[in-house]
Amino acid sequence: MRLRLTPRDSTYFDLLAQLARHTVTGASLLAELLGASRPEREGLVKRLTEVEHLADDVAHSIMKRLNQTFVTPFDRDDIYALASALDDCMDAMDEAGHLIVLYRIDELPMAVSEQVQVLQRCAELTADAMPRLRRLEQLTEYCVEINRLENQGDTLHRSLLGDLFDRTTDPITLIKLKEVVDVLEEAADAYERVANLVETIALKES
Amino acid sequence: MRLRLTPRDSTYFDLLAQLARHTVTGASLLAELLGASRPEREGLVKRLTEVEHLADDVAHSIMKRLNQTFVTPFDRDDIYALASALDDCMDAMDEAGHLIVLYRIDELPMAVSEQVQVLQRCAELTADAMPRLRRLEQLTEYCVEINRLENQGDTLHRSLLGDLFDRTTDPITLIKLKEVVDVLEEAADAYERVANLVETIALKES
Amino acid sequence: MRLRLTPRDSTYFDLLAQLARHTVTGASLLAELLGASRPEREGLVKRLTEVEHLADDVAHSIMKRLNQTFVTPFDRDDIYALASALDDCMDAMDEAGHLIVLYRIDELPMAVSEQVQVLQRCAELTADAMPRLRRLEQLTEYCVEINRLENQGDTLHRSLLGDLFDRTTDPITLIKLKEVVDVLEEAADAYERVANLVETIALKES
Repeated sequence: MRLRLTPRDSTYFDLLAQLARHTVTGASLLAELLGASRPEREGLVKRLTEVEHLADDVAHSIMKRLNQTFVTPFDRDDIYALASALDDCMDAMDEAGHLIVLYRIDELPMAVSEQVQVLQRCAELTADAMPRLRRLEQLTEYCVEINRLENQGDTLHRSLLGDLFDRTTDPITLIKLKEVVDVLEEAADAYERVANLVETIALKES
Repeated sequence: MRLRLTPRDSTYFDLLAQLARHTVTGASLLAELLGASRPEREGLVKRLTEVEHLADDVAHSIMKRLNQTFVTPFDRDDIYALASALDDCMDAMDEAGHLIVLYRIDELPMAVSEQVQVLQRCAELTADAMPRLRRLEQLTEYCVEINRLENQGDTLHRSLLGDLFDRTTDPITLIKLKEVVDVLEEAADAYERVANLVETIALKES
Repeated sequence: MRLRLTPRDSTYFDLLAQLARHTVTGASLLAELLGASRPEREGLVKRLTEVEHLADDVAHSIMKRLNQTFVTPFDRDDIYALASALDDCMDAMDEAGHLIVLYRIDELPMAVSEQVQVLQRCAELTADAMPRLRRLEQLTEYCVEINRLENQGDTLHRSLLGDLFDRTTDPITLIKLKEVVDVLEEAADAYERVANLVETIALKES
């Protein structure tokens, strides 16, 4: 394993880790929101949007730095794609929170909490993995585990859809719940994209 | 500010400006279509598709030129992404027009006109900005303004969705209107992608 | 026409051809599934998923090889994009099969079979074209034909949507059928992306 980075380059790892940690906060706000009453949800969705803005700022710093520096620790395009994919995770979770409030959804199926638990686990593993990019340590375990979680999320999503169509008689309620459930699945897909990019980087550098 | 481009390279700026101007035409046809009667709409959607084909041809010329020349004024990938994103703006507006006709939507909520006004403003600003890429002039103002418009569009979109679900009792009507409103939001997102790419180019070149 | 590839590089062509052939199998399983009874569909969708996993494995081999070798026959990014787009074709067809089973759709409009026939034709043409990438032979014909098929698919998709909204009175049935029809259109779009990438490669190399 080479130790190849100068101190200056390490800013990218710090920024990526910071961005991933914002998604951890986002995922736990979303989990809190699911269990909250309708008036509490308004406040929680505002905090979710604040975190989303913080994440945007970090992503923007990464892009700006990428466009202004010559030396990057990895392939410039991979860092760019990694920041974009982490931003997509955040955006999808923020969107889910907003939809729940906007559509005034009172009761969500239990399995939606399980979807959000999968996202929380993805967020934590990703935030733990980002600093390990620096020395390319234990990244395979992380990638394997995210892929396992994404498969679990996929199965959950499909069984949730099946249940929704079986049990929901009001079509407008169905449209609302389906959109929330689909957006949460998009968040899980975005975490998988992050892990696939990490795998790509690890392969190139190894 | 460097003056770095040979006359030959300037074709890219001309083509990008041309593509952006097609989206201006597209956006005004869409605005016209909203206020038109059902029989008039048929004709307007045909003209919209003609403009979409013209835009496709320009995008295709850009791609072809990119693949056959060695020297490009900016990073080849950025020009490619810029042409693709402008094409996405056009496609989404064309799609919205088609859906309105296909779904025989008689009455659209007033706020849909506001969404299209945002798109018209985005289109005009973008068409004005493309020629300024040549000397990297006044691009920051453009990017800031598009981001402001996209935020405005996002707020409009969310409040429109809220209203739709509040007021529409017929689920099939809801499905139709929601798709139109969502596709218009995609068009606004595509203009934001264009502006973000312009910002990237400006940062790299500055 | 240059003969520029060393034997070792040819693995990429073999792998891309293999991936495209998996989509041929996928498309015919999907065609079979449309005409099958509900109990038979369960088995067919399982086989579809098996093929999707095989395709995933091939796509993964391509990515891995790309990240570990220095010399690639074409631009590394183009091979990557080609593998991803072929994977998207497979994913969309797999998704369509799953939705038909999950939503317990008994009767599909006849035009859905025509959509799948278009996909089968796209898949076959693509599988035939992949080995010709090696010597850049007869690729224009292939690209033109795929674009023609995609336009045909687009027209089919729009007329199907029109019919669905005209004839379906139950909104929940409408939601189900619309999703299947939209996912099949995504598969056709993905085949068009493959053809556009092939055109790009051919232009760069010519």
